[in-house]
Amino acid sequence: MTASTLSQEQLNALHNAATDLRIESVRSTSAAGSGHPTSCCSAADIVAALFFSVMRYDPKNPKAPNSDRFVLSKGHAAPLLYAAWAEAGLFPKQDLLNLRTLHSDLEGHPTPRLPFVDMATGSLGQGLPVGVGLALNAKYVDKVDYRTYVLMGDGESVEGSNWEAMEIAHQKQLDNLCAIVDVNRLGQSDPTILQHDMEAYRARWSGFGWHALIVDGHDLSAILSAFQEAARTKHTPTVLLAKTLKGKGISFVEDQPNWHGKPLPQGAETQKAIDELSRQLKPNGTAPKIPRPSPISITRPAISPLPAPSYKIGESAATREAFGVALEALGTVNPLVVALDADVKNSTYSEKFGKKFPDRFFESFIAEQNMLGAAGGLAACGKVPFVSTFAAFFTRAYDFIRMAAISQSNIKLVGTHVGVSIGEDGPSQMGLEDIAMMAAQPGVTVLYPSDGTCTYRLVEAAANHKGMVYIRAGRPKSPILYGPDERFQIGGSKVLRQSATDALTIVAAGITLFEALKAYDHLKAAGISLRVIDLYSIVPIDRTTLLESARNTQNRILTVEDHYAHGGLGDAVLDAVATEGIKVHKLAVRAIPHSGKPDELVNHYGIGARSIVEAAKDIIK
Amino acid sequence: MTASTLSQEQLNALHNAATDLRIESVRSTSAAGSGHPTSCCSAADIVAALFFSVMRYDPKNPKAPNSDRFVLSKGHAAPLLYAAWAEAGLFPKQDLLNLRTLHSDLEGHPTPRLPFVDMATGSLGQGLPVGVGLALNAKYVDKVDYRTYVLMGDGESVEGSNWEAMEIAHQKQLDNLCAIVDVNRLGQSDPTILQHDMEAYRARWSGFGWHALIVDGHDLSAILSAFQEAARTKHTPTVLLAKTLKGKGISFVEDQPNWHGKPLPQGAETQKAIDELSRQLKPNGTAPKIPRPSPISITRPAISPLPAPSYKIGESAATREAFGVALEALGTVNPLVVALDADVKNSTYSEKFGKKFPDRFFESFIAEQNMLGAAGGLAACGKVPFVSTFAAFFTRAYDFIRMAAISQSNIKLVGTHVGVSIGEDGPSQMGLEDIAMMAAQPGVTVLYPSDGTCTYRLVEAAANHKGMVYIRAGRPKSPILYGPDERFQIGGSKVLRQSATDALTIVAAGITLFEALKAYDHLKAAGISLRVIDLYSIVPIDRTTLLESARNTQNRILTVEDHYAHGGLGDAVLDAVATEGIKVHKLAVRAIPHSGKPDELVNHYGIGARSIVEAAKDIIK
Repeated sequence: MTASTLSQEQLNALHNAATDLRIESVRSTSAAGSGHPTSCCSAADIVAALFFSVMRYDPKNPKAPNSDRFVLSKGHAAPLLYAAWAEAGLFPKQDLLNLRTLHSDLEGHPTPRLPFVDMATGSLGQGLPVGVGLALNAKYVDKVDYRTYVLMGDGESVEGSNWEAMEIAHQKQLDNLCAIVDVNRLGQSDPTILQHDMEAYRARWSGFGWHALIVDGHDLSAILSAFQEAARTKHTPTVLLAKTLKGKGISFVEDQPNWHGKPLPQGAETQKAIDELSRQLKPNGTAPKIPRPSPISITRPAISPLPAPSYKIGESAATREAFGVALEALGTVNPLVVALDADVKNSTYSEKFGKKFPDRFFESFIAEQNMLGAAGGLAACGKVPFVSTFAAFFTRAYDFIRMAAISQSNIKLVGTHVGVSIGEDGPSQMGLEDIAMMAAQPGVTVLYPSDGTCTYRLVEAAANHKGMVYIRAGRPKSPILYGPDERFQIGGSKVLRQSATDALTIVAAGITLFEALKAYDHLKAAGISLRVIDLYSIVPIDRTTLLESARNTQNRILTVEDHYAHGGLGDAVLDAVATEGIKVHKLAVRAIPHSGKPDELVNHYGIGARSIVEAAKDIIK
Repeated sequence: MTASTLSQEQLNALHNAATDLRIESVRSTSAAGSGHPTSCCSAADIVAALFFSVMRYDPKNPKAPNSDRFVLSKGHAAPLLYAAWAEAGLFPKQDLLNLRTLHSDLEGHPTPRLPFVDMATGSLGQGLPVGVGLALNAKYVDKVDYRTYVLMGDGESVEGSNWEAMEIAHQKQLDNLCAIVDVNRLGQSDPTILQHDMEAYRARWSGFGWHALIVDGHDLSAILSAFQEAARTKHTPTVLLAKTLKGKGISFVEDQPNWHGKPLPQGAETQKAIDELSRQLKPNGTAPKIPRPSPISITRPAISPLPAPSYKIGESAATREAFGVALEALGTVNPLVVALDADVKNSTYSEKFGKKFPDRFFESFIAEQNMLGAAGGLAACGKVPFVSTFAAFFTRAYDFIRMAAISQSNIKLVGTHVGVSIGEDGPSQMGLEDIAMMAAQPGVTVLYPSDGTCTYRLVEAAANHKGMVYIRAGRPKSPILYGPDERFQIGGSKVLRQSATDALTIVAAGITLFEALKAYDHLKAAGISLRVIDLYSIVPIDRTTLLESARNTQNRILTVEDHYAHGGLGDAVLDAVATEGIKVHKLAVRAIPHSGKPDELVNHYGIGARSIVEAAKDIIK
C-alpha cells in the first residue's frame, strides 16, 4: 500500500486512527494522573501511518517471524505505542486505562514485559542503537527482509549515542533501517537546542551520510510518500525529519511550553481535549488494512556441545585469550552466537571469532554505547551476543547496560584488562569498578575466572544461561589450575587448599588468587594453614561453601581483589555472610592507581602475596 | 607570530622541534617497553606548531592565568605531550626516560598529577567535552581571552560524546575553541571507519555548524595558516581536520598496520628510527619564541557564609527542591559556583540558580557526557560546578565520572529521582545503582540527606569540600526532621531514636528513614525498642557511631534503602563493621521494579515500614 494508491477514504481512516491514538493517549494519562500526552500527540500521525499502512506485521502476534520492527526511542510516548497496539487489535482498548498501575504491564515507559517491545526505552538516545542491532540481524545474520523503524524525539537527538549509531548504520549500509525524528520543538524544561530549524537537522544527518527527508509530520500523504522513498533508498539508511507540534490537535496545549510530562487535568480539561479531538474525526473512513510480513520459515539451528578446553595444568594463559579461544569454539557449535567489539579485538582476542565468522562479527569501532544497544537488538532477535572491550570502557555504556538489565536481555559482556595488573597504561585503562556496576543490576550474573580452563567453561556457561552475564578477564598470563575435565557452574566456587587446622579462609579470583596461593605457601612454610577459595562466580555466590569454610576457620575470612574496595568481590562475600557474625577483612585497591609494572602495582596497592601474608598474620594473631 | 611572518629559519626550527618530539617519543617508549610512538609521530607537527608558535603560555608555569589551554584527547600520545613540555623547558628532557614508571608522574596516559594536564585522558572521546568547559569558562564566566585547543584522534571521533560537545560548542558560539583531528587512518585493530576520507569528516563537522578546515597535518605552513584562520573565525568553533600518517617519519612503520600501541623494539630498530629522524633535522633553525599570555589580574573572590536554611520541623519538602534552594543561596555567597543541568532543571530545581545567575548556569540539554566533561573543564579553571540530573542518567556519563575521579576533580554531582519512590514513571527513570557507581570511585564523597535542612547543609558542605561529591536526592516530599541550627558534617550521622534497651539498630537514609521511623513507632507500641540512625554520609561513613550502636543493640543492624541490594547503603554499613562480627541484615530493592504508585512500590519491593517491622521482629525473635 502506497501513498499514491491510498484513496481519500483510506487517508481519512488513517487520520481518524491518528486522532483516536491522541484521544486514547489523553484519556489514559488523565486516568493515570501522570504521563506525557503532548509528546504522544506530536507523533500520532507518524505512528498511525506506520501501524496502519507502512509496517508489515501480524497485529495479533508481535513476534511473528520477519515482521517489521518498531522501536519507540522516545519512550515517554508509551501511551501512544500502547494505543496503537490496542487499535491494531492486540488487546482491548479498555486496558489502556490501567496505564502506569502496578498490576498492568502498560508501564510509564515501555519494557519487554510487553511482547511488542524489543528493548526497554525511557532513557533517551537508546532506540537508534537498538534499531541498528535489529537491522544488522536482518541484513547480515538472518538475511531476511523485515524493516526496522525507530521513532525518536528531537530533544534526545543531542545524545551522542545516536551519532554513534548513525555512523555505524551508514558504514553497514543499513537501508533496511528508517529513523523518524519527531521534531516538536519543545523539550522538558525549555525549547530544544535546534527548535524547528529543520535544515540544521538535515545538515547533521546528511553529514553522516544518511538520506535525510524533511516532512510535515502532520501531513499523512507526505509522511507516506517519505516512507516509500525510504523503502526505495539503497545502501544507506533514511531519516524522516518530521516537523510537528507538541500537543497537536488540542488547541490549548498545542505548541505551548510547560506541558511536558503533564497529563491534562482530570475533569473538564480532559473532556474538552477529547471533545476537540473527536470533532476532528472525519466521517468517511475505510478501516485500513495492515500489511502482513512475507512468510519465511525459521528453524532453530542445532547447537552442539562445546569440545573440552585444551589447557593443561602447568601451562599458562591469559584469561582474555581463553575467552577468545572459547568464543571461536562456540561459534562453531552455536550458530546463534554473534560477537561485537570496539576496536580492541586484538587485545580481547574476539578477533579469533571475527576471522572465522565474519558475518556474525560486528566491529563496532570506538563507540561502546551503540555497541551495547546493537547487542540488545541482536539479542531481541534470538541471537546470543558476546560484547567485548576493556572492562573500564563498559563504564561508557553503563546506561545501556542498565536498560539491558531492565529488559532482561540475553547479552553476554566480557570485560578484559581488569585491575592494576594491566600495569603501565595507567588508571584510565584499568577496570576497577566493573564488578560494582555489573553486580548492582538485578539479574546480571557476574563471573570472574582465574585460569584458562575456567574461563573457557564459563564462556560456555554464559552462552547457555538465559539472561545477562558479565565475565571479568585479565591481561597477564596466569598458570592453568584446572584440567580439561574440571566442571564449573554459575554459582559455584572451588576450594583449592584446605586442612582441618585452617586458621583463616582466603577468598580471591583472578590474579589475586595466585597471590593467595603464594601467600598460602609462604605461611604453610611458617606452620600456618589457610583455606583458599577460588570464587569464580560472584553473582550468584556460593554462600554454602563460604559459610562452611568460615565456620571451619574460626569465623574468619580475608578477601583479596584487583578491584576497588566498594562493590567488588569482598562486598559480595560480606553480603553472603552478613547475617552470621563472620569477621571479614578486605584487601582491595583503595586509591587511584598509578602507571607501573604489573607486579609493582599489585604490591604497591596492597593486594599481592606480601600484603596477604601480613594481613593473615594480623588477623590470626 | 603567524605563518606569513614566519621566516624559513623559523619554519625550519618548528620542523626540527617536531622531529625532536618524534625522537623523544620513540626513545621514551622504547625505554619503557610499552606505549604508542606511532600515534605520537602522526601528531608531532601539529603539536610543534601549537607549542612553539601558536599557543600563548608560560613554559615554566602551565597554570599561569589566561594561558591558552591544550587538551590531549588522544591520551595515548602522552609521550608527545611530555616531550613538548620538556622541549618548552618545564623539566629536563632526561626525565622523559622515566615514562610509565611507578615513581614518575609521566604516566601511560596523562593525569592532572602533572601541572599541565587539566583532566585525565586516555578514555577516548573525553577531550572535546573538557575543552568545551574550558572555553565556556573563558567566554562566559571569567570573560578572558585564552584559547582552548583539543587534539583528538580519528578513531575516537566515533565516540558520541564528541558530537554532544560539538552541538553545545556551536550553540554557545565557542569561537575560542579549536579542535584538531589527527586523521592518521589507522585504529588499534584495523583501519578507522572513515580512513582518509577527509570530505566525510568535513561533512560531519560542518553539518554541526563548525568551521571545518582540511589540512595536510605534516605541512607546518598549512597548519599555521589554518590556526590563524581559526583565530579569525567568529561565532562558531573551528576544527582542523589534519590528514596525517601514523608513524610519520619512520620509514618502516609509517602508515603501516599492526603498529598501534607498540614501542619500537629496543636496540637496532629503535636506533634505526632515531637515526632516520635525526637525518630529517634541518641545519638552519632559529629557536622559535613561545608567545606569552596577555596579562590579567585574577583576584580570588570573597566567599561569604551561607545563611541558615529556613525549613521548620513539621513542614515538608522534597530533598531535590532543598538542593535547588541551597544552590541558589550558594550562588549569592560564592561566585565560583556554577551549575549545569541536562534539560531537567525544572525537576531538579537547579533552575532556581539558572534564573538568578544565567551567566553561571549552563543548560546542557540531553547530553550527559558532555555535561560532565564540561564540568571537569570548569573545575579545572577553579570553578565549583554543581551538575544535576536524574540519578539514573548519571549512568550515561559513568566513564566521565570515572575519569573525573582519576583527575581528583572538584565536581559536585546531584542525582535526583532516586529509587522506586519516584513511582509511575517506572524503572528507566529510577536511580537504583547510583550509590554503587559513585562509592566505587576512590575519593568520591557520597551523601544522602533525608530532609530539607540536611540537604541544604550538605550542599554547603559539598561546595566547601575539595574533591568530588555526590548528593543523592529524592522526588517525593518528606517531613522536615531538623531545625535550622542543626549541624551536619561529611562523615557524620544522626541517632534519631535510642534507649538503653534497644534490641536492634536500624540504619537508613532518604525515604526509608521515614519508613524506619514509622516502624519504630509501631514496634514501640508493641513494647519493642529500636535504635534509628540517619546515615546521611555514606562515604566517608560514621563507623564509630555504627559500631557503638550495634554493640548496644546486641550486635544487630538492619539497613533499609531505596537502592539495589549490591553496592548501596547496606554494603557501606557492612563494610564499616565487617571485621567486628556484627550481624547485618539488609532490606533493599532486589528486582527490576515496575511502574506504580510510590507508596505501593515502597511496600511491594520490601523497603517500607511493614517490611521493616517484619524483618525486625524476625531478627529479634
